[in-house]
Amino acid sequence: MLFYTLDIIGTFAFAISGVLVAMQKRMDLFGIFIIAFVTAVGGGTLRDVLIGRTPVGWMNDLNYVYAITLGVVFSIIFRKKLNRLRTSLFLFDTIGLGVFTIIGVEVGISKELHPLICIALGTMSASFGGVIRDILCNEIPVIFRKEIYATACIFGGIAFFVLQYFNLKEDLIYIFTAAMVISIRLIVVKFRLKLPNIYQK
Amino acid sequence: MLFYTLDIIGTFAFAISGVLVAMQKRMDLFGIFIIAFVTAVGGGTLRDVLIGRTPVGWMNDLNYVYAITLGVVFSIIFRKKLNRLRTSLFLFDTIGLGVFTIIGVEVGISKELHPLICIALGTMSASFGGVIRDILCNEIPVIFRKEIYATACIFGGIAFFVLQYFNLKEDLIYIFTAAMVISIRLIVVKFRLKLPNIYQK
Amino acid sequence: MLFYTLDIIGTFAFAISGVLVAMQKRMDLFGIFIIAFVTAVGGGTLRDVLIGRTPVGWMNDLNYVYAITLGVVFSIIFRKKLNRLRTSLFLFDTIGLGVFTIIGVEVGISKELHPLICIALGTMSASFGGVIRDILCNEIPVIFRKEIYATACIFGGIAFFVLQYFNLKEDLIYIFTAAMVISIRLIVVKFRLKLPNIYQK
Repeated sequence: MLFYTLDIIGTFAFAISGVLVAMQKRMDLFGIFIIAFVTAVGGGTLRDVLIGRTPVGWMNDLNYVYAITLGVVFSIIFRKKLNRLRTSLFLFDTIGLGVFTIIGVEVGISKELHPLICIALGTMSASFGGVIRDILCNEIPVIFRKEIYATACIFGGIAFFVLQYFNLKEDLIYIFTAAMVISIRLIVVKFRLKLPNIYQK
Repeated sequence: MLFYTLDIIGTFAFAISGVLVAMQKRMDLFGIFIIAFVTAVGGGTLRDVLIGRTPVGWMNDLNYVYAITLGVVFSIIFRKKLNRLRTSLFLFDTIGLGVFTIIGVEVGISKELHPLICIALGTMSASFGGVIRDILCNEIPVIFRKEIYATACIFGGIAFFVLQYFNLKEDLIYIFTAAMVISIRLIVVKFRLKLPNIYQK
Repeated sequence: MLFYTLDIIGTFAFAISGVLVAMQKRMDLFGIFIIAFVTAVGGGTLRDVLIGRTPVGWMNDLNYVYAITLGVVFSIIFRKKLNRLRTSLFLFDTIGLGVFTIIGVEVGISKELHPLICIALGTMSASFGGVIRDILCNEIPVIFRKEIYATACIFGGIAFFVLQYFNLKEDLIYIFTAAMVISIRLIVVKFRLKLPNIYQK
């Protein structure tokens, strides 16, 4: 139940981050809603389509649609004050990152896929909504260029299987995995870390 | 039968609109054909993939492929005269918008999805071919920025369920829904309406 | 077995071509890996999704993932020497083009789809990884603009069905189809051929 609540809060936060990008591109209301939507559920939708879990998740649980709609309405009303909420939004977004990773890994396990594929599905669930958002906004996806974002999910996914290997209880696995994703993300942002540069100056 | 004919005419018109955009980007023949194809059937394909109705529609009915091919050949041959046909093309395109909306809603109902999701599927069927077209042409989708296009489908979808609620006969529901979509679209273009602007000047 | 080996070699070569494009865009390691991945298996993944063959191919055979990873590591280590390997890479890439076309056609046949759709699936398998790569790199897909690439696959697919019509043995059909794709591609590059220009100067 707590987990589901965090999932919905993450969806709400992802939707707001979508609205912010859409507004930078000066999209109209329809465009803003769609960008919020794909940012929030695009990763999970891609995952569901690739493994054949259809109709995709949000079609069977309207709470996601409501959370996104709320996120859109909220951010349009408070659009001039969102800057002051930057820290809260970042925290919600990071919680979403952790929760979505776990959900993606679990969905992969339920389909009896190889752990490597499950980790890929966790990463996809958490971070590919942003990829689709950037494509629709005609940008090279930011997580392909400079942000350590998906990498946090990959390490979270690895942690998940390491802990499972040691037979930890599911609850503990969830908490440690989410903590792993969230703390990597926080450290990365705090210290402005980047992946090693392979290019010459 | 009339409905199917209108569906094929809509496909033909959507394909031509795809060719026009591809030509502006000076694509080669292969590119033109693919853009025409995704403009015409991309929305329905996305819908089918998301709900797991595979192989997707056009793979089971080659008439769509033929209509698109005809649209491509037609618009290449008459490429210098298409401007004079602008009004007819716009009308066909608008008919397609209405028909595709109804098909999308019906497909959603056949999968027993929630009315809100059915309306989303109708809108997607009718308007997301253009979104995929714009992405492939490296543009921010025009319907996210300035055109009231998808909004006409949304209102059509709402009308569909309101009429169903009042137990109207299927034929009448179809006619009213299509009329709703088509007339909104015509009014919008006639009076150059836009969605409310949420940005400051 | 030989066929499977060629498939893996093609995947490896496609991954390297993805890395090269990602590096031009100065992506980070994560971005490079994803672009390599979609270039190599994106076409087959799109095919699998459209016909409902899920979980998609690479989820059930990790050798593809390993081949791609190897391709990424290889091309990052030898990134300054790849230019000298240009001819070998081009040959591997072209072999991949032929092999992927055959696989796509066979998958379509196994789903009992119409020959035209099977040819489309073969072409998609072989050439749409590059389309997704270009979209993710924010470019209009190169095969829509100037390269005869997909066209080689289309002719290969046609050859496949013509030979099947004459009851040739499967082995021979495979060899001739691949030879068709590969030789068209070689001739096109050698003589810098393009599709007929429909635009005025």
